[in-house]
Amino acid sequence: MELLHARWAKGYFVCGGFDPDPAKFPIHLRTSPHAIQDILIATKVFCQETIAAIGPYVCAIKPNSAFFEGLGRGGLEVLAEVISYAHYSAPDIPVILDGKRGDIGNTNIGYRKAAFDWLGADALTVNPYMGFEDGIQPLTEDPSKGIFVLCRTSNKSAREFQDLMTGEGFAAMRLFERVALNVRGGWNQNKNCGLVIGATNPGELNGIRKLVGDLPFLIPGIGAQGGDIEKTVQAGKDSLGRGMVINISRSMLYASQGEDYAEAARTEVLRVNSLVSDALETASTIPTIC
Amino acid sequence: MELLHARWAKGYFVCGGFDPDPAKFPIHLRTSPHAIQDILIATKVFCQETIAAIGPYVCAIKPNSAFFEGLGRGGLEVLAEVISYAHYSAPDIPVILDGKRGDIGNTNIGYRKAAFDWLGADALTVNPYMGFEDGIQPLTEDPSKGIFVLCRTSNKSAREFQDLMTGEGFAAMRLFERVALNVRGGWNQNKNCGLVIGATNPGELNGIRKLVGDLPFLIPGIGAQGGDIEKTVQAGKDSLGRGMVINISRSMLYASQGEDYAEAARTEVLRVNSLVSDALETASTIPTIC
Repeated sequence: MELLHARWAKGYFVCGGFDPDPAKFPIHLRTSPHAIQDILIATKVFCQETIAAIGPYVCAIKPNSAFFEGLGRGGLEVLAEVISYAHYSAPDIPVILDGKRGDIGNTNIGYRKAAFDWLGADALTVNPYMGFEDGIQPLTEDPSKGIFVLCRTSNKSAREFQDLMTGEGFAAMRLFERVALNVRGGWNQNKNCGLVIGATNPGELNGIRKLVGDLPFLIPGIGAQGGDIEKTVQAGKDSLGRGMVINISRSMLYASQGEDYAEAARTEVLRVNSLVSDALETASTIPTIC
Repeated sequence: MELLHARWAKGYFVCGGFDPDPAKFPIHLRTSPHAIQDILIATKVFCQETIAAIGPYVCAIKPNSAFFEGLGRGGLEVLAEVISYAHYSAPDIPVILDGKRGDIGNTNIGYRKAAFDWLGADALTVNPYMGFEDGIQPLTEDPSKGIFVLCRTSNKSAREFQDLMTGEGFAAMRLFERVALNVRGGWNQNKNCGLVIGATNPGELNGIRKLVGDLPFLIPGIGAQGGDIEKTVQAGKDSLGRGMVINISRSMLYASQGEDYAEAARTEVLRVNSLVSDALETASTIPTIC
């Protein structure tokens, strides 16, 4: 989390999300869908060129494991090389592996070895459903590695369980609020936990901010998913006007279908980061926002 | 799920869980923890020999992805080879990949490709936290592939969220009960869903059986985790006296530290299956069990 604070201090809040879909690659990188070796190479080139272009202007890089696993044999090898390249090309930028993992204690040691030791990520997204004590805990033992816990996700059916009211009377709260409180409490003993909270409902985002103080938020849902940047920033910033990892993926990765795709990705990162900075300045001149 | 019904009809209820830990392998298969190529080969041999021994006597084989991912480079390749060997050696035995995956809709296509197309599993365990409609749904589109949804897991901190009471009045129920009901309802349109429910609390197991009718249950928690087989069977069986995939892992995999490890694994499978059969016969002579 220290790497994130250093990036926020420099004014970078956008996270580059890597959900590489070979069917959407720029024309010159497209191959036959059956040419698996070519697809692996194209994916590596696409990710690495984009990282080289955006690295200096983001607070984090977030590859999504599913898109690499879905490439089959060799997919995770490409992921390992992409993360390795990110550390080489942008050494101060943390890599958050979006794997939404979680199992019982001992089993998580496998996920920990894979994410942190082999693939070389600095943080991992995790699913809270199995609880902390003999669930997620092994993933938080190393204070230099972080987890972002799914709290209120940005998809529509998130409400199926996450919005359920739990408990009664004064203790009543929605499931995602209870996840947030528990993460702020017992889960965060090594000060290496954050929350995943979608940008699709700024009111909820601000409610969670009030519940958990300055816990870092990983915020998807901006861009292709339609979240409003100004409202998101005003609702999600912490007491220092920081605390947000604002993810953009598709709007950045596929900003251009031409050979200028990496520059176009950088332009999109700078555009969103500028909107975030503007929103933070606006917010700082307003005494209270809600 | 049809493969499971065929195995149950033949009297096989035990699932062979593969959580391979090289430090616990039989003496002759142990290598230096730094000899990664040797570890990969030992893991493959260990799993394949055990599958060859138990294949005819189980209803399913359940490799846990984390243990293979944790082997790093080459780990998932071993997993693919182990699953391929299972299909060759025991062609009618379904392979359930225990990955506890789940993300928003499009992203799940990556997990679907990895689990079903590349690795060749017949079913996948999934986490319900993000909901079904634009969450898990892509993983259920192919009726020939199944999912087992985490409902009430067998670990202690499962209660942190799964046991929370949700809703009010007559509609009040615990979170895991709501997961069970939703899976029985909208999730199961292709008749390819089951639930993961630990054996550690037979009362809860029976409560869920009453809620969801004949939905298949994947039941961990027997053996090393201490669940009672007779109570579990009486609580978990469906209306046909079937419906249970009773998983054993450590008590089977590490039943012997000698060269007879595969035979010892088979002996343990047969022992547990015999206890299950006895419990089913006992149950069938008792008019009502709760």
